[in-house]
Formats: sequence, structure tokens, C-alpha cells
Amino acid sequence: MILETIVTSRHPDGRTHIAPMGIREDNDRVILAPFRPSTTLEFVTASRCAVVNRTTDVRVFAGCLTGHRDWPLVGADLIDGVRLRDAIAHTEIELERIEDDAERPRLVCRVVREVQHGVFRGFNRAQAAVIEASILASRLDRLAAEKIDAELAYLTIAIDKTAGPREHEAWRWLLERIDTHRKSR
Amino acid sequence: MILETIVTSRHPDGRTHIAPMGIREDNDRVILAPFRPSTTLEFVTASRCAVVNRTTDVRVFAGCLTGHRDWPLVGADLIDGVRLRDAIAHTEIELERIEDDAERPRLVCRVVREVQHGVFRGFNRAQAAVIEASILASRLDRLAAEKIDAELAYLTIAIDKTAGPREHEAWRWLLERIDTHRKSR
Repeated sequence: MILETIVTSRHPDGRTHIAPMGIREDNDRVILAPFRPSTTLEFVTASRCAVVNRTTDVRVFAGCLTGHRDWPLVGADLIDGVRLRDAIAHTEIELERIEDDAERPRLVCRVVREVQHGVFRGFNRAQAAVIEASILASRLDRLAAEKIDAELAYLTIAIDKTAGPREHEAWRWLLERIDTHRKSR
Repeated sequence: MILETIVTSRHPDGRTHIAPMGIREDNDRVILAPFRPSTTLEFVTASRCAVVNRTTDVRVFAGCLTGHRDWPLVGADLIDGVRLRDAIAHTEIELERIEDDAERPRLVCRVVREVQHGVFRGFNRAQAAVIEASILASRLDRLAAEKIDAELAYLTIAIDKTAGPREHEAWRWLLERIDTHRKSR
């Protein structure tokens, strides 16, 4: 089972990085599998730790693909890293081992702390649509225009019916990104 | 913003009911808007209370459409109702007023208690796909076979890539339901 989360990492030189990442959880292990090249891979390899943030604020996911990366970060509790200030929950992890791979290495991490900050309020179809559109927006170079149009038309239904202000904002960023991409071709 | 939740209600005569429902939250009010005819409408009108359960176990959503309704219930804390035992969080509500409507009355409810039971672990695309397929399965009589096929083909991608055992089980129930419906036509 793959969970869509936001991984925050900090290089020992102080640079921080925020990235959407599909993770796997296996008992008390978290497995990150970033595609190379990856800033998260670089930072976690150097710092040996990271934070998995569980958030339903889909602007963070869409924002990482559209140049909106300025989300409030605060220090983690037990590791030398940072976390999203406003996530519903966060999990601090330490790198245990790397299963190397030319395309997609696996970072097997140990959970050292998990904290709940907010309440999960239920599924929202528009949030799911933003997640799907974010994946779409990350693969524009590899997809036919007709496929992009068809998926957006389908996903728009959930946006129109169920979105709140955050989902509308994230959706607008993604549409602008897709539009800019098309004009550049 | 509409949140997809499971509403549990109990008639004063002791019958309980579990139903997926898209709710709205407005400050300390929860608004249920069931389409007539609705067992939830009947029970909440009679008992003047209900519970909104926030769960990521999509089997409960798919199960309500496919005859799997035997989920563990326990008594609520402050109202004379029941809640899902295994939800991530639950909110106990009391009926304040009904804004009547021939098709879709609005039940405006007051929050009397909210309890967190588990940790939200992140978005899962397969869970979102099950929610969409559940909506599809609830509208089979009104949709063309081609539209159902196209949506299922799209949603299958997220199932294949990201589902865990619960999501696979829910997905199987929905496919069986859709298959049975087709054979009956």
C-alpha cells in the first residue's frame, strides 16, 4: 500500500527540502523510494534522517509542482530535521540502510517518533482529484494532450462538486502549470 | 467543501443504520443532506442525533453498496447513538433543525463531542478510487455502460499501483456488484 505524503528533509549544510512522496510502511519501518535525480535522496543520504508529514492540505502537493514551496517549517522533536508546521500528523524517521538502484533506490528508515497534531475530517473527492492532477502535471512531457484533457475533464467534476478554498487554489495552480506547458510547446 | 464520511444512526426502537454520506461542516455545525428516501433521515428525525465517523477503511463505503454492512458498532459517549468502533475519529451530533425539501432535506446538527481514535497516515490513491467507484456503483441505472467501463479502467490504475488488502477487497465487492447489475439487464 502506498501513502501519498510530504517528506521534509534537511541537508547538514542547512538547506531544507519539501517533496511529495509515495511511501510504504512496513511495521515500524518507512520505505522511501525516490526516482533519481532526487533532492530528497541527496539530503537524506547526507543527514540520515527525514520527516514524513501526513497532510490533507493539497496545496502543498500541488505547490511542489508549481513553484509554491514556501510552507511553514518547524524543527523536528528527536531528529535533526524539519517538519511541516501544519500537518495532521508527522513521523520522524532515521535512515537504516539504502537498497541501491540506478533508477529508484529504496531508503529503509526506522520510525523514532510519531505525533498527531490535528483531526482527520474525512475523505474529500476534490483533494483526491488534486493528487491525481498533480501526478498528471508531473508527467506532462510523456502524456498526449488528449489524455491530459480527458483526465482533467473527469477530475473537474469532483472539484466542482466538493472542493473548498484550498482545493480550488491548488487546482488553479495546476491548471496554470499545464496551460503554461502547452503554450511552451 | 464536502467530506465523505460514514453516518451511523439509531432509531429509538433500537434499529441501527450505517450509511456513507457527504457532509458539510460549518463552524460547530454539521449539515447532513440525505436524498429521499433515506433511512438515515428517518432515524435522525426520530432520535434527534447521529454520529459522523471519519474512516479511511473504504470497505465500509463499498460495503454499504454491496451488502457488507456488518461493521463493529459501539455506543456513543454523550448521545443515545452508536459509532463505528474502528474509525479514525468520530463526531457526535444533535439535530438542531430540519430545512425541509421534497428531494433533499438539510439536517442542521450541533456538535456535542469529537474524539480522535487513530492516526491519519496519508492519502492513498486506491482509497480515492474506491470512493469514486462506490459513487459509480450507486448510479448504475443512470449511466451508460461505456461510461462505467471508461471510469473503471481509469480508476483501476490507482488500485493496481497503490492498494492494500482493504482497498483490494472493497474494489472486488464493487466489481462484483457492477457485474451482477449488468447480467441482470
